[in-house]
Amino acid sequence: MIDEVRAANQAFYDAHEAASTEAMSVVWEHSDRVVCVHPGWPILRGWPTVQEAWRQIFAGPHRNQFILTNEAIAVHGDVAWVTVDENLVSIEGGATVAATNVFARTDGRWLLVAHHGSTVVYRMTSDDD
Amino acid sequence: MIDEVRAANQAFYDAHEAASTEAMSVVWEHSDRVVCVHPGWPILRGWPTVQEAWRQIFAGPHRNQFILTNEAIAVHGDVAWVTVDENLVSIEGGATVAATNVFARTDGRWLLVAHHGSTVVYRMTSDDD
Repeated sequence: MIDEVRAANQAFYDAHEAASTEAMSVVWEHSDRVVCVHPGWPILRGWPTVQEAWRQIFAGPHRNQFILTNEAIAVHGDVAWVTVDENLVSIEGGATVAATNVFARTDGRWLLVAHHGSTVVYRMTSDDD
Repeated sequence: MIDEVRAANQAFYDAHEAASTEAMSVVWEHSDRVVCVHPGWPILRGWPTVQEAWRQIFAGPHRNQFILTNEAIAVHGDVAWVTVDENLVSIEGGATVAATNVFARTDGRWLLVAHHGSTVVYRMTSDDD
């Protein structure tokens, strides 16, 4: 089951790297209850609104490439939450976005219902030990 | 059921406003799978680590007061995800943090398993219409 969630999460990042609205559409649940918070953005709700934001992002000049690290997956019944560091590689330099992704299983398929990303600004002192 | 989740979410913000580690301890699931991302922070995982961060935040000079707006709750089986705008009121001025909170129901109790907050920097053009 963890493997299914991991595959669903990877498909999300594959769709993002490919800048494919079609692949994004396969990853997300098409419902009013989906939510998406891009770094620094307000909350977006409902698939049409979330989809339109991806469309705008993918229409822009930036292509994002990710190195995913520090992934953890938890499953409780038909819902899973994944946290992962999105290490962005770009010509402008790197950045790390901490992401929380929530997947809900319906008819055996794990679909993305919540994505929240925020740029990591602070470093914990414990990391320096 | 929505009311139970709303009450659990409110208890989280009550604990934060009260700067009470004891009340925070009641709100959160005590497990390795809990995750917490404060605005700009890296991912914190596991109740001991999450608890220690709250302890440090509450030991600091800042007291946060929230006006919560724009709340939405979705439930899928034994898990709920809540998104809400945390409008912080402080003497330094206001700020809005977009938050995603995930609750898992165990033995009839909705416990917080994931909190992710990020400061809203951009305004959507559609808000200006």
